[in-house]
Amino acid sequence: MSSEERPALHSHTFRLSYGETDPAGILYYGTWFRRMESVLSEFMYLEGLRQDELKDRFGWWMVTRATECEYLIAVGLFDEIRLELRVGEIRTSAFVFEFRMIRVADGVLVGRASVTDVTVSPDGHPVRIPVEFRERLEEWARR
Amino acid sequence: MSSEERPALHSHTFRLSYGETDPAGILYYGTWFRRMESVLSEFMYLEGLRQDELKDRFGWWMVTRATECEYLIAVGLFDEIRLELRVGEIRTSAFVFEFRMIRVADGVLVGRASVTDVTVSPDGHPVRIPVEFRERLEEWARR
Amino acid sequence: MSSEERPALHSHTFRLSYGETDPAGILYYGTWFRRMESVLSEFMYLEGLRQDELKDRFGWWMVTRATECEYLIAVGLFDEIRLELRVGEIRTSAFVFEFRMIRVADGVLVGRASVTDVTVSPDGHPVRIPVEFRERLEEWARR
Amino acid sequence: MSSEERPALHSHTFRLSYGETDPAGILYYGTWFRRMESVLSEFMYLEGLRQDELKDRFGWWMVTRATECEYLIAVGLFDEIRLELRVGEIRTSAFVFEFRMIRVADGVLVGRASVTDVTVSPDGHPVRIPVEFRERLEEWARR
Repeated sequence: MSSEERPALHSHTFRLSYGETDPAGILYYGTWFRRMESVLSEFMYLEGLRQDELKDRFGWWMVTRATECEYLIAVGLFDEIRLELRVGEIRTSAFVFEFRMIRVADGVLVGRASVTDVTVSPDGHPVRIPVEFRERLEEWARR
Repeated sequence: MSSEERPALHSHTFRLSYGETDPAGILYYGTWFRRMESVLSEFMYLEGLRQDELKDRFGWWMVTRATECEYLIAVGLFDEIRLELRVGEIRTSAFVFEFRMIRVADGVLVGRASVTDVTVSPDGHPVRIPVEFRERLEEWARR
Repeated sequence: MSSEERPALHSHTFRLSYGETDPAGILYYGTWFRRMESVLSEFMYLEGLRQDELKDRFGWWMVTRATECEYLIAVGLFDEIRLELRVGEIRTSAFVFEFRMIRVADGVLVGRASVTDVTVSPDGHPVRIPVEFRERLEEWARR
Repeated sequence: MSSEERPALHSHTFRLSYGETDPAGILYYGTWFRRMESVLSEFMYLEGLRQDELKDRFGWWMVTRATECEYLIAVGLFDEIRLELRVGEIRTSAFVFEFRMIRVADGVLVGRASVTDVTVSPDGHPVRIPVEFRERLEEWARR
């Protein structure tokens, strides 16, 4: 089952406002990232994993290595969008959060993004994903 | 000569502030995008090509199709960064703006990004890059 | 009946995220403004008054003359906040939107802000609030 | 000598971009705040006073109590603006940072803002401005 067929782990629904679209009513390409950050941080928080506490609680934390975003369909001012979060590929020390942007009015997929994170030691060197966190990631990937 | 060896077309230098870094002093991954938008828009403006006037002046305009960003080195609060713009690959109807983030203190490349734009008709369908704009892009790519 | 005893005209509820708080977990003072803009724009939109169409539809539009904000109680990372919109004072050519920030967990008022707008002619000179819009404002103030 | 006649303590000059102006090319009212935060934080940093270290170094820190902003003249897309910082009134436990926004092309004052901060104990209760910091504030106010 591809990740896109599973229900989202978490989502936010919001209406695009002036500050998120340009004079032609087109989405600024940076808009999704702030929104993605917010959905992901809230999901982690609700799962009991505040990112600002990982280092102290577990001796590892996570940093973002790469992001990618595709703008598939033009969206504009006042469109209502649902931003969905899922877990994608899980590798040795890296793992991927996948985001899909759906226009609520017609269910059309208007954008798609991924954020690749790496688990790192307190001083920032990549480490194997710790066993317990890997289990969480795998559970999220099956949910 | 690779694009990275040419001088930048335009750049902004700025110091990362609280709103751009997280509680661990790590850059928010969305931070670069707002900055990239600003460097690119100012460059186009200084070249006489306001993006909000393209449609009326020339009968075509440009939309962003994809973005990619790599975070190579952790940067943090109060680091001074130079964000450089260059033109990358030029295809049939798509072209790439390349961005490099350099830590001013030591000249280290800390991040790298690309924005893929497409020239479109007034109603938003991809069109071949118009000849005159292609010449501008090629001139920028050689500059 | 003071404006604070009336139900809100519109509100958004959201959880403060990393990008909205500083390294001490304290709210950035600019955070509320983006959120206020979003609540107000959506309210106007839902009332059939897109701000970007006022000039063409009615021959007047509105600009912001002043803003004020008080930070009453420290809020921080992951606090859930309800941002409420009401109409305040209505003068000759100016009128006030009032915002209240309530911490959802305990109903405490944590912040308060106002935005003073002015109705202007197409070229930006203040004009008396047009009769029909004044009626809308007064209806909102009683709602 | 009024504060406005003294040279600025610090300033940033920048060109307003799409993300800072609305579809009518008018400044978003929240735009100045992010910029003010950045000028003030950099000033404090250059003076050896990182706000995120105050609590640990000195046993006090500062929080924002109120902000005010007036939009005097409409500015728009691609206007170049100089944002100037000065120290204003110094009271018992509160002090004011004053900001002025100048349009570079003609030197016109287009906006004006103030941020009122309070010195607080580590647990966030207002305290008298500590003597050494008061001396810094007074020196800044004379500079």
